[in-house]
Amino acid sequence: MVAQGSPPLDRQEVESLVREVLLQKLRAGATPPPAVERHAVEPSRAGGPPHPLVVNVSARHMHVTQADLETLFGPGAKLTKLKDLYQEGEFASEQLVTLVGPRQRIIPNVRILGPMRNYTQVELSYTDGIYLGLDLPLRISGNHEGTPGVTILGPRGAVNLTRGVIRAERHVHMSTQDMNYYGVKDGDYLKLKIDGPCGVTFDRVKVRYHPKVILEVHIDTDEGNACDLESATRMELTK
Amino acid sequence: MVAQGSPPLDRQEVESLVREVLLQKLRAGATPPPAVERHAVEPSRAGGPPHPLVVNVSARHMHVTQADLETLFGPGAKLTKLKDLYQEGEFASEQLVTLVGPRQRIIPNVRILGPMRNYTQVELSYTDGIYLGLDLPLRISGNHEGTPGVTILGPRGAVNLTRGVIRAERHVHMSTQDMNYYGVKDGDYLKLKIDGPCGVTFDRVKVRYHPKVILEVHIDTDEGNACDLESATRMELTK
Repeated sequence: MVAQGSPPLDRQEVESLVREVLLQKLRAGATPPPAVERHAVEPSRAGGPPHPLVVNVSARHMHVTQADLETLFGPGAKLTKLKDLYQEGEFASEQLVTLVGPRQRIIPNVRILGPMRNYTQVELSYTDGIYLGLDLPLRISGNHEGTPGVTILGPRGAVNLTRGVIRAERHVHMSTQDMNYYGVKDGDYLKLKIDGPCGVTFDRVKVRYHPKVILEVHIDTDEGNACDLESATRMELTK
Repeated sequence: MVAQGSPPLDRQEVESLVREVLLQKLRAGATPPPAVERHAVEPSRAGGPPHPLVVNVSARHMHVTQADLETLFGPGAKLTKLKDLYQEGEFASEQLVTLVGPRQRIIPNVRILGPMRNYTQVELSYTDGIYLGLDLPLRISGNHEGTPGVTILGPRGAVNLTRGVIRAERHVHMSTQDMNYYGVKDGDYLKLKIDGPCGVTFDRVKVRYHPKVILEVHIDTDEGNACDLESATRMELTK
């Protein structure tokens, strides 16, 4: 459907649009992989926390089942490691997909994070959701009831995901040692104060327990940009 | 320059990219104008503040000089009003421009806000800056020393802005009445607490005095999405 009031597209405009999108596509190969995570570390002190406070920004990414990976990348496809993430065993893969949302807009170069999961999940910021036309629910990983889907394109096929697109609720990974130090339990909330030119206190950071993790806060790109994490002068995690 | 390792573009892929970008362009006319501002108001109470607390999200936008407006929209061009903004005399115009950044990426449909200014200024979020390839300085409107430029396309011409692209420092507009109530002066900082599922306290909100304004906080889209302003349950401005 062509909307009323759409400006007419002349030949020059079409050519310029095509040139622009092709340039983007060609340049993509030269662009370094997007920073999946940004670290900001304070050293651990004697008598202080068992692990240093690490805050990382999770850029948009996807987790995938073996079945969906094979639909996207072909039979027998495996994730290949680009780089390790902070938690042992977690990694950014070399595999990238394209998302197509209900507004017929696309987000290319969305990275799959490994290892393989038993569900396929896409984690986006609200900025991404508005762009694609998805009303993202705020969820902890794996809780997909009532979540929207999205179309995922890989080099060998497409997955019409019916649900599993979320904004990840900001959270802090903690081991028993970390929870004891901060005096919290799984599911509690802490505050994360980021000092700097764009100072922000995130008042609700959910504690997520796992025996094998070490202390790490995950915020998304909206949150990382709101507080300008890269220019933070001091960070503190408190009750 | 074609980067090494760029995936080859086959005819089908080119066609699909072209189709995608043209669809976006055609659909643009059918899309309602982007929300320039979102309101969240608490009623004024007896003995309470002189004006209700209003927090608005400033989406990416531009201010323009008459000379630059005429370069973009042709000789004698004038801004035409789409809708009034919260402060008297300020308005969203019907005029839209396209930005082209150093990464050869574009942001279309950037709205000009009126009235006319004696400087041209583009206000973006950090998310926009990263997308375009601009390292945005955090500034109060009008302070352009050392700020980057951008290419601006209008229907009748282009402006190569050499400086004036900023992330607006989050701020609160106040009259004398408002400053007296909160016990602050021009240039001071207040805290804005937003309660809700994505609860955030913005620790640095700069007071900007003008005799003719009424109380209004401006945050950008990164900040509005970080705290999910639309689902806020309570807001408070404190020292």
